[in-house]
Amino acid sequence: MSLGNHAQPAQAAGSVGVVSASKAHFVEPLALSSGVSIANYDLVYETYGQLNAQHTNAVLICHALNASHHVAGIAADDPKSIGWWDNMIGPGKPVDTNRFFVIGVNNLGSCFGSTGPMFANPSTGKPYGPDFPVVTVEDWVHAQARLADHLGIKRFAAVMGGSLGGMQAQAWSTLYPERLGHAVVIASTPKLSAQNIAFNEVARRAIITDPEFHGGRFYDFGVVPKRGLEVARMIGHITYLSDDVMAERFGRALKRSHAEQSGAADDFKFTFDVEFEIESYLRYQGEKFSRYFDANTYLLITRALDYFDPAAAFEGDLVKALAPAQCKFFVASFTTDWRFSPQRSREIVQALLTNRRDVTYAEINAPHGHDAFLLDDPQYMRLVRSYFERIAAEVSR
Amino acid sequence: MSLGNHAQPAQAAGSVGVVSASKAHFVEPLALSSGVSIANYDLVYETYGQLNAQHTNAVLICHALNASHHVAGIAADDPKSIGWWDNMIGPGKPVDTNRFFVIGVNNLGSCFGSTGPMFANPSTGKPYGPDFPVVTVEDWVHAQARLADHLGIKRFAAVMGGSLGGMQAQAWSTLYPERLGHAVVIASTPKLSAQNIAFNEVARRAIITDPEFHGGRFYDFGVVPKRGLEVARMIGHITYLSDDVMAERFGRALKRSHAEQSGAADDFKFTFDVEFEIESYLRYQGEKFSRYFDANTYLLITRALDYFDPAAAFEGDLVKALAPAQCKFFVASFTTDWRFSPQRSREIVQALLTNRRDVTYAEINAPHGHDAFLLDDPQYMRLVRSYFERIAAEVSR
Repeated sequence: MSLGNHAQPAQAAGSVGVVSASKAHFVEPLALSSGVSIANYDLVYETYGQLNAQHTNAVLICHALNASHHVAGIAADDPKSIGWWDNMIGPGKPVDTNRFFVIGVNNLGSCFGSTGPMFANPSTGKPYGPDFPVVTVEDWVHAQARLADHLGIKRFAAVMGGSLGGMQAQAWSTLYPERLGHAVVIASTPKLSAQNIAFNEVARRAIITDPEFHGGRFYDFGVVPKRGLEVARMIGHITYLSDDVMAERFGRALKRSHAEQSGAADDFKFTFDVEFEIESYLRYQGEKFSRYFDANTYLLITRALDYFDPAAAFEGDLVKALAPAQCKFFVASFTTDWRFSPQRSREIVQALLTNRRDVTYAEINAPHGHDAFLLDDPQYMRLVRSYFERIAAEVSR
Repeated sequence: MSLGNHAQPAQAAGSVGVVSASKAHFVEPLALSSGVSIANYDLVYETYGQLNAQHTNAVLICHALNASHHVAGIAADDPKSIGWWDNMIGPGKPVDTNRFFVIGVNNLGSCFGSTGPMFANPSTGKPYGPDFPVVTVEDWVHAQARLADHLGIKRFAAVMGGSLGGMQAQAWSTLYPERLGHAVVIASTPKLSAQNIAFNEVARRAIITDPEFHGGRFYDFGVVPKRGLEVARMIGHITYLSDDVMAERFGRALKRSHAEQSGAADDFKFTFDVEFEIESYLRYQGEKFSRYFDANTYLLITRALDYFDPAAAFEGDLVKALAPAQCKFFVASFTTDWRFSPQRSREIVQALLTNRRDVTYAEINAPHGHDAFLLDDPQYMRLVRSYFERIAAEVSR
């Protein structure tokens, strides 16, 4: 990996190593956007690097749909589990844990240890299931702010996230303007389009109409709505990849084991089994996902995506919605991302510039579609590295 | 509706009126691409206008995924059923039934009267179900050619279709080069992309994994895989509409009955019920579809789409694949069609031009995405009208 062009001597980027999650318990009720509140909940988190004496070098990483607090390093309880942004965060990496104290947190309603639908509802003693309150991006930000209090962090050097994580960074900038120096908003959008909502809705219907969903109470039946989760994940995957990268990676190639016998294009099986590589890939992704992801969480998180629209309270005026923000912004998009296209990031940038905020915007020429924000594009990595060097310089001043 | 700029006196475009379907029975076995053959099958068709004495004015209309032989007019057995291309075909319409004898045919394996999976398998006496042979675009064309023989039509003035129908028009041009004067290929592609196949595969998985699919033998259980069909159709609908038209038609508007109470954007219900208009629209489309469409047919037709790739037998060389074609071509695409984008139509045009064929190509600026080929865009209608006036002039010579 390139170390960029900073003046320090070259140093190999490393891993944060083996990491264990911590758990914070919150007794006080948290008022949610829906009007209900939740008390006695847990948030699971990981930290990497050291908090400095002034507590000014903390960076919060917000996760997207299917990710977790396990952002970097190797999970102590599962050596095969590498953090989902391990290429971005670590000693000598773009978000350098030799300089920053980085926090990954699992959001409320997710399924990786923080309180969610599979937790016991205190009022019934049984899993919440469909009774877990619908949560919003703003609710998550308020919960994250309490975690910051718990960790003694008054102000983050930066709040950073991609996709849904970028929505959280946006919300931080307006809900707690004094509590962050920078918002790093990658491959995100100020709100979902009708098409984005449509894809979410189809995925939800696949889950909800799976007979093994049992109205969200599948835990009581010892089953999971595996078929619905698989279809939901397959739909998601199509929207994460660009048409180009799908063509390049899979094209119309027949599945390997089949194609090995004969390369002839007319050597079809004439069945509805896997025929093309792309089918095999999607089924594999769906199957893998259905083994670890909670169906109620999928519904909750897609709904949080649907609902996010800070401009709605200002008659659609994003400039007014972002007016409270005081921090500086790094916004990045990827040319082939058709889920949250560059145009959507430009809307954010335009609104911030109208508010005379300090904005760095990068539109990165990358072939991988929405997925690019998780990948090792060298230009992308250099830009994030360079931006965090600027933040590090401010912190150490 | 505009009558274009032809010199005849203006005349109101009308309907072909009430139409009844006919049925042709074919005893001889038809050899299919898969290697199996099918005998004793029916094809259901409708005709509009009069076949001229020389039998030179016949136009064959090929249908796409969910359509049928009922192309124009009012079905005799269902006065609410208007043909799916009634805006295009009729007296005084772009494909003018005062001049042309137009045939709509339901393809083998479909579910509107031609032999398909719900028909009795002669070898068991029970519905074919999953044992109905997988059919290809080329198989359909061979079956259509037999229907032409049956109707005494040696040569079509034109073979015309949109989307999958356009694939059939392409296949006609190379399989029966002497039997058509013009191929009219609208909103089509020379082959599916990996992304196109991916969407088909997700739709198929939704159907196949529905417990009420019963491995395709649901007829025996008195059920239909309604949930799978609904999800499949919802996915399809997203790909038929452009992002823009979805934004314009639905945006992020809350469902009417709900929004009537309050227009406030933060007036969410905080449930997974229908919240946005787009959700309501998709569920309605899915529900409607599941009431009339056969699940096995959905699998068959999406597989025919996947398999179509005439260039595959020529190492991907579309020029060679289209070399046998002798007819003239009208190719049209729509700027906002992201399912089969203009680029895909241009590939066809380029290959035809390399073969020095006579090609008219129109890239129509329309907001409606893939669906545009079924809609009343004035420019589109004028271009088709004008092209068929040219065909009519040739026929009457």
